[in-house]
Amino acid sequence: MNNQRFESGLKKLQEIDGEAGQNVIDSLASISPDLANIIIEFGFGEIYQRPGLDLRTRELATVAALTALGCCQPQLNVHINGALNVGCEPKEITETIIQIALYAGFPACLNAMFVAKEVFIERGIIKDQQE
Amino acid sequence: MNNQRFESGLKKLQEIDGEAGQNVIDSLASISPDLANIIIEFGFGEIYQRPGLDLRTRELATVAALTALGCCQPQLNVHINGALNVGCEPKEITETIIQIALYAGFPACLNAMFVAKEVFIERGIIKDQQE
Amino acid sequence: MNNQRFESGLKKLQEIDGEAGQNVIDSLASISPDLANIIIEFGFGEIYQRPGLDLRTRELATVAALTALGCCQPQLNVHINGALNVGCEPKEITETIIQIALYAGFPACLNAMFVAKEVFIERGIIKDQQE
Amino acid sequence: MNNQRFESGLKKLQEIDGEAGQNVIDSLASISPDLANIIIEFGFGEIYQRPGLDLRTRELATVAALTALGCCQPQLNVHINGALNVGCEPKEITETIIQIALYAGFPACLNAMFVAKEVFIERGIIKDQQE
Amino acid sequence: MNNQRFESGLKKLQEIDGEAGQNVIDSLASISPDLANIIIEFGFGEIYQRPGLDLRTRELATVAALTALGCCQPQLNVHINGALNVGCEPKEITETIIQIALYAGFPACLNAMFVAKEVFIERGIIKDQQE
Amino acid sequence: MNNQRFESGLKKLQEIDGEAGQNVIDSLASISPDLANIIIEFGFGEIYQRPGLDLRTRELATVAALTALGCCQPQLNVHINGALNVGCEPKEITETIIQIALYAGFPACLNAMFVAKEVFIERGIIKDQQE
Repeated sequence: MNNQRFESGLKKLQEIDGEAGQNVIDSLASISPDLANIIIEFGFGEIYQRPGLDLRTRELATVAALTALGCCQPQLNVHINGALNVGCEPKEITETIIQIALYAGFPACLNAMFVAKEVFIERGIIKDQQE
Repeated sequence: MNNQRFESGLKKLQEIDGEAGQNVIDSLASISPDLANIIIEFGFGEIYQRPGLDLRTRELATVAALTALGCCQPQLNVHINGALNVGCEPKEITETIIQIALYAGFPACLNAMFVAKEVFIERGIIKDQQE
Repeated sequence: MNNQRFESGLKKLQEIDGEAGQNVIDSLASISPDLANIIIEFGFGEIYQRPGLDLRTRELATVAALTALGCCQPQLNVHINGALNVGCEPKEITETIIQIALYAGFPACLNAMFVAKEVFIERGIIKDQQE
Repeated sequence: MNNQRFESGLKKLQEIDGEAGQNVIDSLASISPDLANIIIEFGFGEIYQRPGLDLRTRELATVAALTALGCCQPQLNVHINGALNVGCEPKEITETIIQIALYAGFPACLNAMFVAKEVFIERGIIKDQQE
Repeated sequence: MNNQRFESGLKKLQEIDGEAGQNVIDSLASISPDLANIIIEFGFGEIYQRPGLDLRTRELATVAALTALGCCQPQLNVHINGALNVGCEPKEITETIIQIALYAGFPACLNAMFVAKEVFIERGIIKDQQE
Repeated sequence: MNNQRFESGLKKLQEIDGEAGQNVIDSLASISPDLANIIIEFGFGEIYQRPGLDLRTRELATVAALTALGCCQPQLNVHINGALNVGCEPKEITETIIQIALYAGFPACLNAMFVAKEVFIERGIIKDQQE
């Protein structure tokens, strides 16, 4: 019964977050495999399956919310990767982060931008200045 | 010099927020007209003028961030109106708010949804149940 | 399939929140009945069904978290009522709110205490000073 | 023993917040007189008695923090009054609120500015536009 | 006079937080020994001494609030240890953290769960997967 | 045109934050030089240029707000340095941080105090206990 929700959730998780999402799931195995299941079944098997908002906008809205919350660097890393995986332009991601400075201030904006920098360097979108 | 920034900001404010934005500006006249100018010149004359993110996505990202912050009902009212004014579907707005439940919890989501309900009733998108 | 989750969720919602929970669900009918379903099925049909934490502690932990978040007065009203409904003593609720002053400061503590005051007056636990 | 802390706290509370502080204390009488005592003894009898920061700066720092937190309108009302009571200029208060827009965004800034507007109208510092 | 509050506070701190609490106090010695004294006297000598809420519930409420706040990993480490020290079951802690996902979202929940994982590994409650 | 705002912003940034501010700007070069420009032009070229609040109070208000927000350690590092650069006493900074415990709780206060400890050790104001 829940197997179906779990299967479609896992598939969606892999589509959006690839390895990064799987790493979060794996890192919960010893402490709370139930929380991993909840995130897959409810998060990706239910909410992310809903019609009415395309995946690109869903991921940019998620980046906007995580930027505003201010304490979500690990989740920003996953969802900036996710936004790129579902076809968002790097520019759309940095513009979303700049936009949120108006609503949550520059520290939240800067902290998110430095996560974007890490992700963009890892994926070869920009070059590491240290090189 | 700043006149140009102010003029293009005012035009953008009216395009997005219509009367609701103007009301915020007017209500600052007696206490801090400078803050009104800053919001018009910097917010709408600078940030909202940037390329790289279309206005519809910009407004949905704003709704996502305001939902996550949790204490921004007046601004949510302005920007849910703004999202509709620039062409977002009502469904895109409610889906964005539901999506943020995953990241900021159900109270933030519910409080934003009830602002959307007020706006949608005012604009005749849904009917008031009390009628 | 989801009917079962919905049914057990609705039963749990009524056990904990009584009429107050139902009012939230009803007020979502015109704007997002899906959000009401999600809260019943996932919130009360899944999370609140979990073993390992008794309902009294679950409600006090919820009051603690809502107090700390600072912007959740409507939800505090529902869950202070819920805490009383599942057998918490009024004193346990006020002590939980005082405890959170250490972690989230006095404004969050005061705002939650004034919600508790409203609920306790409504339920006749304390008398309204204005009478 | 605590009487001394309570007495000096009450005196400081009256110096800073006048009637507004007393109203908060009174409104706690039926629900949690202990919380009122804690705020007087610890807040005003201990922290506000500390040397090293003058009262004017202490109140402006408090206004800055309450603005940033975003959900503290009742406390902002008390402490904007408090800042004026201990000799801050109205301009210092509005500038502090504008400064915080950089760090916590414009919604938090706007919500605080509208509390300042209420206080300034009540005290006759500015005129109500509706008159 | 305050010596008594300090002594009972220090005793309570050691009962709840053991070495972890003492480390926080020690690390304040060079920068602000007064803040250490305030936390011992007011936090543990006053608030934690109050009747009306047993220590186990007090610690679970604290874990709930710190999870919801989202930026309190060091304090979560101290109080997850504290909850275990006063007799909470590991399961009660992980269930409290999962419960808070409903109210503060999954990033806050995940960040707290990973602190619980660290604490549980340190105390040998679960095994480190890397071993 | 903006050059003038940029020039006066850069000068103010160097006056307040010295090398630390410049490092933030440099670290944005590869990912979003526009964000660096916005912070210099709007933050330091516009807001920090405003009359009505002296720089010392402006920096202490900033430290208060960043302490309250709870997730701004990198920005606290910059602005605790900034406060010292514009003439604040170390004691004024630690008192501001202690004051904010009343409004945002002890975790936010402690996390800010440990940033102050790092800055004070770096600048030789206090000695590192490890030495």
